[in-house]
Amino acid sequence: MSGSPPNRSAGRDAPSPRFSINQQTVKQWSLPELADGCAAAGVRGVGLWRAPVQEYGVAAAARLVRDAGLTVTSLCRGGFFTALDPKERADALADNRAAIDEAAALGTNTLVLVSGGLPSGSRDLHGARERVADALGELMPYAAESGVRLAIEPLHPMYAADRCVVSTLDQALSLAERFPAEWVGVVVDTYHLWWDDTIGSQIRRAGAGGRIAAFQVADWVTPLPAGVLLGRGQLGDGVVDLRWFREQVDACGYRGPIEVEIFNPALWERPGAEVLAEVLQRFDAHVMHVR
Amino acid sequence: MSGSPPNRSAGRDAPSPRFSINQQTVKQWSLPELADGCAAAGVRGVGLWRAPVQEYGVAAAARLVRDAGLTVTSLCRGGFFTALDPKERADALADNRAAIDEAAALGTNTLVLVSGGLPSGSRDLHGARERVADALGELMPYAAESGVRLAIEPLHPMYAADRCVVSTLDQALSLAERFPAEWVGVVVDTYHLWWDDTIGSQIRRAGAGGRIAAFQVADWVTPLPAGVLLGRGQLGDGVVDLRWFREQVDACGYRGPIEVEIFNPALWERPGAEVLAEVLQRFDAHVMHVR
Repeated sequence: MSGSPPNRSAGRDAPSPRFSINQQTVKQWSLPELADGCAAAGVRGVGLWRAPVQEYGVAAAARLVRDAGLTVTSLCRGGFFTALDPKERADALADNRAAIDEAAALGTNTLVLVSGGLPSGSRDLHGARERVADALGELMPYAAESGVRLAIEPLHPMYAADRCVVSTLDQALSLAERFPAEWVGVVVDTYHLWWDDTIGSQIRRAGAGGRIAAFQVADWVTPLPAGVLLGRGQLGDGVVDLRWFREQVDACGYRGPIEVEIFNPALWERPGAEVLAEVLQRFDAHVMHVR
Repeated sequence: MSGSPPNRSAGRDAPSPRFSINQQTVKQWSLPELADGCAAAGVRGVGLWRAPVQEYGVAAAARLVRDAGLTVTSLCRGGFFTALDPKERADALADNRAAIDEAAALGTNTLVLVSGGLPSGSRDLHGARERVADALGELMPYAAESGVRLAIEPLHPMYAADRCVVSTLDQALSLAERFPAEWVGVVVDTYHLWWDDTIGSQIRRAGAGGRIAAFQVADWVTPLPAGVLLGRGQLGDGVVDLRWFREQVDACGYRGPIEVEIFNPALWERPGAEVLAEVLQRFDAHVMHVR
């Protein structure tokens, strides 16, 4: 139509500068393919995972993303702090120091932490959560020296036994608030938190305290697959009011990246560029609500 | 040993008078097999489901359990109140009145309600929860006339989209508390609530208000199966501190039945009597903590 602005009629606008694609969403891409694919799509932010970065080499990966003009919005993930065995616990802390080093090398100030589940044979959720707090206390000075902020991610309660004993934003904030906001924050991920009727007030609490270290989006679709790990939905395919979440974090002053993190084998079977283009379109429609 | 009491050496004690077996736990049994099996094991309480009762005939089922000396501790289930379509909503209310009639006919004063998920295409959890409250208001007078109490069951948050928008005991109580405690209560089910770090205080709130209409137990085991419906664990096989839960409901004055409700295909493949015997043994060991 004649009233359309020229850049619209010439093709799609550049992605929102807040948009970041988490590497797991386009897992079919190697790191160089990810860097090229983001450049081609005008995407400037990526969330990376430790395993593929280590495989490529941390220094090489850091160079690759820097040369591509990409900002690493977060590194996933440290954590798994709940072991009772002293040796396992020491190993976990050492591994988290390595993760802090890797985050610093990649130029990101955000290390996402998944707390860990119950140790084998244990039924003590409270004790496990206290061990998470202890680990944060041990790691925080090292993180601060390295300029990396620890970001506690509450995972959906369906993961409480085997993956993450921190299930709500309330719990994550209660842990984070024992430490300075500069070095310990929380992750707000729509997939994990959408069901919680107190989430609006908890996001305000997080914002008021300057605790929002990362904002991640994915949709909730059913039925859940066996193991419930790889059932996240493409933005707009499920029941989460993604725009409402984005408006909540915006309203409390968060201006950081919005990272799309979808674990979904159906997306991994398609060409990465096609998936990224679809994610960008869905992001505009369902998160930013651009028409 | 010579110090053992005689009834121990003669065999197992009678089951706790608070023990009740939910029909779904031994789904391989027909209703007459259930009645016979309970009689043989000395079990006096059963929780029934509408579909098998309807199939057998409500009046016949009522006679069967009465003749077997069984108490029906609850009927599962009414609910599914979240439809937006007026016709669907009217049908749901009519079906719930039928469920109230069936509960009364079976001689139980407890109708378990599963609230329902989000209607197709909706992302409005709050609106859906308000429709649950509206339905409770419409049904309560009929339930009261029939001497049946409506028992709101919070289901694990992993069911919030497709099965039950009431995910926490806090939410269930906030709904129930709009109505007289005599006619609207809540179900405390360990499988759904074990992960919640506020559950102790919510159980005290429920007890103080006289709102605990039913107490059900099952264990949480991983990995979860596809669809996440049939993955409940035998008592003691998982991570739930069942004894702690029982002590919490006892401490706030609940003296009613403790119903074992486990949906698990591996249990259904075994002889019902063997499963019931195992459940009784696990119940003593993990719920009552009898040695």
